[in-house]
Amino acid sequence: MTTTLAPEIHAGVRFLAEVFAGAPLEHVGFRLWDGTPWPDEKTRRTTIVLQHRGALRAMFSSASEKGLAEAYLADDFDIAGDVEAAFELTDFLGRRTAPRGLAALVQYYHLRRLPAAPARPRSNRAFAATGGRRHSLERDRRAVTYHYDVSNDFFRLWLDRQMVYSCAYFARADDDLDTAQTAKLDLLCRKLRLRPGQRLLDIGCGWGGLALHAARHYGVNVMGVTLSRPQVELATARAAEAGLDRAVTFAARDYRELSEADRYDAIVSVGMSEHVGAEQLAGYFETVGRRLKPGGVFLNHAIGDGARPRRRLGASFSDAYVFPDGDIPPVPVVLRAAEAAGLEVRDVENLREHYALTLRHWVRRLETGHEAARAHVDEATYRVWRLYMAGSAYGFAHGHLAVYQVLLSKPGLGGAAGLPLTRRDWYA
Amino acid sequence: MTTTLAPEIHAGVRFLAEVFAGAPLEHVGFRLWDGTPWPDEKTRRTTIVLQHRGALRAMFSSASEKGLAEAYLADDFDIAGDVEAAFELTDFLGRRTAPRGLAALVQYYHLRRLPAAPARPRSNRAFAATGGRRHSLERDRRAVTYHYDVSNDFFRLWLDRQMVYSCAYFARADDDLDTAQTAKLDLLCRKLRLRPGQRLLDIGCGWGGLALHAARHYGVNVMGVTLSRPQVELATARAAEAGLDRAVTFAARDYRELSEADRYDAIVSVGMSEHVGAEQLAGYFETVGRRLKPGGVFLNHAIGDGARPRRRLGASFSDAYVFPDGDIPPVPVVLRAAEAAGLEVRDVENLREHYALTLRHWVRRLETGHEAARAHVDEATYRVWRLYMAGSAYGFAHGHLAVYQVLLSKPGLGGAAGLPLTRRDWYA
Repeated sequence: MTTTLAPEIHAGVRFLAEVFAGAPLEHVGFRLWDGTPWPDEKTRRTTIVLQHRGALRAMFSSASEKGLAEAYLADDFDIAGDVEAAFELTDFLGRRTAPRGLAALVQYYHLRRLPAAPARPRSNRAFAATGGRRHSLERDRRAVTYHYDVSNDFFRLWLDRQMVYSCAYFARADDDLDTAQTAKLDLLCRKLRLRPGQRLLDIGCGWGGLALHAARHYGVNVMGVTLSRPQVELATARAAEAGLDRAVTFAARDYRELSEADRYDAIVSVGMSEHVGAEQLAGYFETVGRRLKPGGVFLNHAIGDGARPRRRLGASFSDAYVFPDGDIPPVPVVLRAAEAAGLEVRDVENLREHYALTLRHWVRRLETGHEAARAHVDEATYRVWRLYMAGSAYGFAHGHLAVYQVLLSKPGLGGAAGLPLTRRDWYA
Repeated sequence: MTTTLAPEIHAGVRFLAEVFAGAPLEHVGFRLWDGTPWPDEKTRRTTIVLQHRGALRAMFSSASEKGLAEAYLADDFDIAGDVEAAFELTDFLGRRTAPRGLAALVQYYHLRRLPAAPARPRSNRAFAATGGRRHSLERDRRAVTYHYDVSNDFFRLWLDRQMVYSCAYFARADDDLDTAQTAKLDLLCRKLRLRPGQRLLDIGCGWGGLALHAARHYGVNVMGVTLSRPQVELATARAAEAGLDRAVTFAARDYRELSEADRYDAIVSVGMSEHVGAEQLAGYFETVGRRLKPGGVFLNHAIGDGARPRRRLGASFSDAYVFPDGDIPPVPVVLRAAEAAGLEVRDVENLREHYALTLRHWVRRLETGHEAARAHVDEATYRVWRLYMAGSAYGFAHGHLAVYQVLLSKPGLGGAAGLPLTRRDWYA
């Protein structure tokens, strides 16, 4: 068959066959710029659609996942069908090319014999990491708002009704997203064992979903902080609308800027500590621990590298386009930092399968809302979210990523934690 | 009042007043060899009874917890009443004398002005740590049998009916010990989600309580291993008596001597990994992980230093007399070792309050059975157990010690753990 192909197509097919020799191609195939399918005509769950003759050069010349992603953002290729399955191939490449990296392989297979990519403007969407020390207050503010200030309306399109932007909790795998997010908010409140009149601090409160749930259903007073002003604005408006504005306060504040005078019965942080930085974690727990009354509890919910982290292909897509300065150390590192701050590890639950389910909901809803999304963000931004969320779903499903709810306590008088003997009440 | 005391008594009282200046003496007082109470006549929960004029020299001249314990083993002093509360004073001394140590304080307060201890034979009960590299197969066998081979009848006196020598699980704090130990065995089986016909490996099976419970109530086949032959003998006899000898096998074997051919659906290890050694932990998890089928689970239940470990007073009592070569790293170290072996952290539960309750049952029962115990062990051995168990109860209650049940999984095909989405079934 290859003998009948035009020389450029032949070179492209040969390149793919060499780079993906031994790859799992049950679910993912390619379509070249003239329509030629590879490895065969069989319809697959996912098709990598090469948009022009220079697509392979554009995808592979930087020999990194960042370069691959940039080629997708610039529409050198598109991904038709199930975008999550496409990560089977990057996963394969990571394993195949470790430890030398993709560059050696690509070099060996004569990428330069392929047609050059057309000259055209590249997206300047990447985070500008210049200026400011990593994890300074100012740079963290820029890094965080880079992700969360894209557009409230954009997030509203594909998040659940309460706009909870973290792993949901599925009592059953086929629960809908609204049900699963409400279940997650309630699980957090049960783990914190909130009682009416208590003071709760929510660090990284997002659009206020958890704070409002806790105030409404558990009668607590909540202070919610985030670095994103659009989040504060919407959360504040939602509290007023719900008649909860006396119980709940939101502020644009860093965890290092909390009032030294305030003490809370319980503290929760969901999907925020990924922005703190592994080296700052001990300081984070120290700072948060000081805000806690003796006998109080702190629930930290965060993504971490799984026990079998993936092998990354060179420069990181996430660092540049998704979560600049983000850091997701494995859970033992998080626990060690918490203990160093005198907080006691009481309960740890791995919810990675829940995050895979959550992300699949988000990707489906984002894809369904593609046109509507384009009213709020450009195509590159849409593609950043589609790609990162599908890749994360793949990572959680395969155990490259994990997400842990960690319940910590600050012992009271004589070291007493003051907690019930069992976790049975969380499941009553 | 002090003016009316004999000079030796006066010196003793002055020494106590200096060493324990600022100590919490609500629960613990002293009685000197002539009957003089210190700090006053008030009756307290605990009395340290100095048996002769040389008692204080005997207690403090080595300026270590090991020396203090040895003075108790040799009956230079006795502890009347609640032995656990006596640890308030060693805890105080640890805090007061850190970081320079007790020696400087004792020196300063002129211990040598006190009468000398009478010359008499010291106990040779301590573990002879000579011979064999730490954590070699041979030395581990000696270190473990040193503790567990004391006498089956001795352990039977104060353990529960099923002879479970690890932290029980109290649904209510006032549950009796038999109830709480049965609840613990069942909790372990539920966490492992055992199903009929599965193969379970129990590493450090003790006298077989867990293996018999799992076979009887969950229909699994169990291989139990321990380094203690008396444990194997009694466990085997109990299996025969229960008609479970076809389902359960016990063997005297190290975890490093398990057959390479065997694979298990589930593995459990309760109170064994404290003997492995922190440096060997990664190898331990690697070795155990190899015995597990993909998709299988491993529950490791172990004591670890708490988030606020106590300040030890010099040479360790436990190393010399209780758990030679024992090692109880904090839980983050355990989890890091497990992850390094490719095992995934699924669930972690801190049960420290349960161990305090368990140990108080054991101490009470041991004290009640003091006379009966003396039919099986000498007085020094009785005192080793009374002291270590009460001190451990104090440590667990105060958060110096913790005990964690850690559920690990060995991911199967494509990284799938194959577990239910929630822990609800453990509490149904």
